[in-house]
Amino acid sequence: MCTQTSTTRSIFSPLSGMALKDELDIVIPTIRNLDFLEMWRPFFQPYHLIVVQDGDPNKVIKVPEGFDYELYNRNDINRILGPKASCISYKDSACRCFGYMMSKKKYIYTIDDDCFVAKDPSGKDINALEQHIKNLLTPSTPHFFNTLYDPYREGADFVRGYPFSLREGVPTAISHGLWLNIPDYDAPTQLVKPSERNTRYVDAVMTIPKGTVFPMCGMNLAFNRELIGPAMYFGLMGDGQPIGRYDDMWAGWCCKVITDHLGYGVKTGLPYIWHSKASNPFVNLKKEYKGIFWQEDIIPFFQGVKLPADCTTVEQCYIELSKQVREKLSSVDPYFGKLADAMVTWIEAWTEVNSSK
Amino acid sequence: MCTQTSTTRSIFSPLSGMALKDELDIVIPTIRNLDFLEMWRPFFQPYHLIVVQDGDPNKVIKVPEGFDYELYNRNDINRILGPKASCISYKDSACRCFGYMMSKKKYIYTIDDDCFVAKDPSGKDINALEQHIKNLLTPSTPHFFNTLYDPYREGADFVRGYPFSLREGVPTAISHGLWLNIPDYDAPTQLVKPSERNTRYVDAVMTIPKGTVFPMCGMNLAFNRELIGPAMYFGLMGDGQPIGRYDDMWAGWCCKVITDHLGYGVKTGLPYIWHSKASNPFVNLKKEYKGIFWQEDIIPFFQGVKLPADCTTVEQCYIELSKQVREKLSSVDPYFGKLADAMVTWIEAWTEVNSSK
Repeated sequence: MCTQTSTTRSIFSPLSGMALKDELDIVIPTIRNLDFLEMWRPFFQPYHLIVVQDGDPNKVIKVPEGFDYELYNRNDINRILGPKASCISYKDSACRCFGYMMSKKKYIYTIDDDCFVAKDPSGKDINALEQHIKNLLTPSTPHFFNTLYDPYREGADFVRGYPFSLREGVPTAISHGLWLNIPDYDAPTQLVKPSERNTRYVDAVMTIPKGTVFPMCGMNLAFNRELIGPAMYFGLMGDGQPIGRYDDMWAGWCCKVITDHLGYGVKTGLPYIWHSKASNPFVNLKKEYKGIFWQEDIIPFFQGVKLPADCTTVEQCYIELSKQVREKLSSVDPYFGKLADAMVTWIEAWTEVNSSK
Repeated sequence: MCTQTSTTRSIFSPLSGMALKDELDIVIPTIRNLDFLEMWRPFFQPYHLIVVQDGDPNKVIKVPEGFDYELYNRNDINRILGPKASCISYKDSACRCFGYMMSKKKYIYTIDDDCFVAKDPSGKDINALEQHIKNLLTPSTPHFFNTLYDPYREGADFVRGYPFSLREGVPTAISHGLWLNIPDYDAPTQLVKPSERNTRYVDAVMTIPKGTVFPMCGMNLAFNRELIGPAMYFGLMGDGQPIGRYDDMWAGWCCKVITDHLGYGVKTGLPYIWHSKASNPFVNLKKEYKGIFWQEDIIPFFQGVKLPADCTTVEQCYIELSKQVREKLSSVDPYFGKLADAMVTWIEAWTEVNSSK
């Protein structure tokens, strides 16, 4: 692990970007130099970065000057977790969840290194992190639908007919941001619509209702590590696995049933980032194609998951979920038995790393 | 009933406003001259209007020249329905549902007479009806959440992780539009925030997930009468009733559980209308206050409603729902027994009027 502390931090810290400065880590999985951080400097520089280097551990990843970061490569992961490192994916951005485990902060923001600062309709640079923090620090409303979107935003409120007993909302565990330019499409849709770009800026944040599972994308995602961290496992993907590009989906399905069970909320919508480059649809198809079959069974499974009332911590919920995955999804493919094992290993590793802190 | 056919229709019909011209009626409840239609002329004139006159039947309501309309006052309602007219509210805009019953068309758009044409962020007049028609003619996606909103809009699609088996969607039964300027707040919120205005144009249409009940506002609402018409009953409100301003809420709760059961979808979002004037919050509080208590029981009731599999028509579902209302909500207030009776009367009246057509 290599660490470096910024000396120039104070120069670049706009007040707006300082919220939760000591309570939030930014986790970035990468295989290349982090030049993309230059564009984010005004917004990210006050924060601590956790870089998870994927692929060849001997490659040197350059982080632009002035950022405060720690970096882990595969050797670090193996050294820190020992045999339990088997639960961390290799050659897949799913490795990012190792950063969630290592963080000592309450909040995590994770972003892909091909994501840049987007502009709002007025042409102003969007401070994605600031919006995520707003989303996480205001409650969610999973128990009833508000037609005017997030009732806690300035200029908005609960509409007529919204029960007063529900207006305090529940703590927000996850803030799922969106993407301008390259939308997060699967390989078949990429192949069919190679030139489709997302140009629609939807000025809304909303709570995903209780009981509704959703496709969570890890490209631009923030969460409260204390509320949901141990469920933010990105699964077994990439090298040696039959599947890729379902890491964030897996985490999203698991997190949603657990937040529903524990009474937390998930928001989606703002902020947007600018997703610069579509990944290769042929490569993606190879990674995804089993998932495209499997999700037809996985999603009904998650829509039907019931967690027992005596599961009162995220860890308990997650272990229970791993049992149900083994029991109900192993018939889809033996992979799910391995994944259920890895889910247990992940919780063991999380507990070990976090209790020793 | 008085009818009048437009002679000037063709002059004012922009092509964009002609969709479903012979398949859609516009239903307007009112107690005053319909001067507000002047502003809507470019959009509404091609369509047939059904005006439901509330209050004193001897008052003459003026409809601007050139509109094709039929008008019903209380005398007409009593004459047409006989004793069954008891299910139609008096001195409350809930009376509008009589217009839904009398229509011979497949689609209904209903709008309040204090709603004007809103402008989109580019300053262009919004053709609300055109957007509702788009919403109704494209499928809904209640079985899984799409983070990029309506996947059938131009420039949008299903995101990665959306099951392919669900991408055909389901028929859309209801399109719920929103309001710029005066938001649809209850009396307590109006009292606390008298000067709050909705200025946020959210450029989105979305499906309300299956299993999620929502607060439906009748101000700017379109629906497929063939799919859901008999459930679009606005209840017993106003004169002689202990409650007002819950007419559309009641219809919305009933419609949502029935669309969920029958496999149809409900969309909310665009289009916006300009809601010109807040109603008096003190008057509203008097109408609403029982509802503010009652909704704390009503909403959990609707969230838990299960309809038996052998209810395969809207009418069957609605009669079954009336039984459950009587059984489960009569303990909240005897009013719900009366309302359950009225629900049955409404279905009888609907069946009578519509089978004789």
